[in-house]
Amino acid sequence: MQPVNCVAIVSGGMDSVTLLHYLVKTLSKTPAVITFDYNQKHSVEIECAKYHTSSLNLQHLILDVKNITRDLFSSSALTNPEINVPHIDTVMGDPQPPTYVPNRNMIFLSLAAAYAETHNVNAIYYGAQIHDIYGYWDTTTEFVSAINSVMSLNRKNPIQIEAPFVSYSKSDILKIGMSIGVNYTQTWSCYNGDRINGACGTCPTCAERLYAFKNVGVTDPVLYRKAN
Amino acid sequence: MQPVNCVAIVSGGMDSVTLLHYLVKTLSKTPAVITFDYNQKHSVEIECAKYHTSSLNLQHLILDVKNITRDLFSSSALTNPEINVPHIDTVMGDPQPPTYVPNRNMIFLSLAAAYAETHNVNAIYYGAQIHDIYGYWDTTTEFVSAINSVMSLNRKNPIQIEAPFVSYSKSDILKIGMSIGVNYTQTWSCYNGDRINGACGTCPTCAERLYAFKNVGVTDPVLYRKAN
Repeated sequence: MQPVNCVAIVSGGMDSVTLLHYLVKTLSKTPAVITFDYNQKHSVEIECAKYHTSSLNLQHLILDVKNITRDLFSSSALTNPEINVPHIDTVMGDPQPPTYVPNRNMIFLSLAAAYAETHNVNAIYYGAQIHDIYGYWDTTTEFVSAINSVMSLNRKNPIQIEAPFVSYSKSDILKIGMSIGVNYTQTWSCYNGDRINGACGTCPTCAERLYAFKNVGVTDPVLYRKAN
Repeated sequence: MQPVNCVAIVSGGMDSVTLLHYLVKTLSKTPAVITFDYNQKHSVEIECAKYHTSSLNLQHLILDVKNITRDLFSSSALTNPEINVPHIDTVMGDPQPPTYVPNRNMIFLSLAAAYAETHNVNAIYYGAQIHDIYGYWDTTTEFVSAINSVMSLNRKNPIQIEAPFVSYSKSDILKIGMSIGVNYTQTWSCYNGDRINGACGTCPTCAERLYAFKNVGVTDPVLYRKAN
């Protein structure tokens, strides 16, 4: 195994999995992979993160933050069983829909930065991606830039946050992934997280994913609950 | 109990405890108090945080992040038993001494911000304080400003980080605390954390604390291991 030269935050969704393969195959990086277990309803994504990390022969740190984030993230439809994951139609144009997890990305990047500092690595990659139809403030170019402004103040070990796909659509990311042989069967997006019965096809991330596959002209290999 | 209208991060050291009393007694705030348990050698400080939070009749959330930060913070003399807490003389002029904990403050502020968002509070107070003789990048005006630039991007619940003591010396803080009746017996600073045998008197934070008390002309009421 090559020495680690960056950190990659990988959820197991199609963006971060594509990023991981892109780092290894296109940029010739050897990332330490960090995955967060945070009471997400779609925690089946972690199995997908494990699959790709293992298949690429990389080290994998799964950080279990369930206990500390149970209350902190309880206002999100992604974690709270009492809040239904919304249909895509209800979040169109919402700048911060119920699927937003309070400050999740800043928490995850901060923890990853501590890992990077302690392990003498100076770059963290994450799969932030532009959202055309609804939005999260913590997946934007402005967010990445502002976080880097914080990190740059570190006097000995400034960590650089890299989000190579931040201005790409999901279709762009899928095209990259197809060109480098990503196995999308082993990725999970649906916020409802029911891998046995299939992805719902109607939540915001399913809608985006299905649109990307349709746009690129490829059939999404994951199981869906209903015909889409 | 009044409704909570801000969050205060309180370690149990003299700066954050003074801040807590200042918030309640001077600014008439009702903070929810958050304390972090992160494998710090001086975890006795948590008992002091509990004392003041209880005496002020405030709600207290102690976030146990030991499991997730054990490895991440392992390069710091504050947490790693194999790294000795340095003598003040060895860190003079060091912009980031061994007592620095990798990205700790950004992690803690990020978690506190998630708490604030979920509980509909829009301000977080923390006891950052200028360091004259050695330094941490994450207790500076620049850091607070940069973190606020990140938080301001939040589209529905921007959280403001407030550090009212950021430009004060420890002497200034002590004077404020004395004027509002803070019981400094129930504060703990020494990084070595041995409350039974007493504070070491020579680590960076002991040195700063002792200097402040001497400067203000008050005897520090906590036990010290040796005459200072």
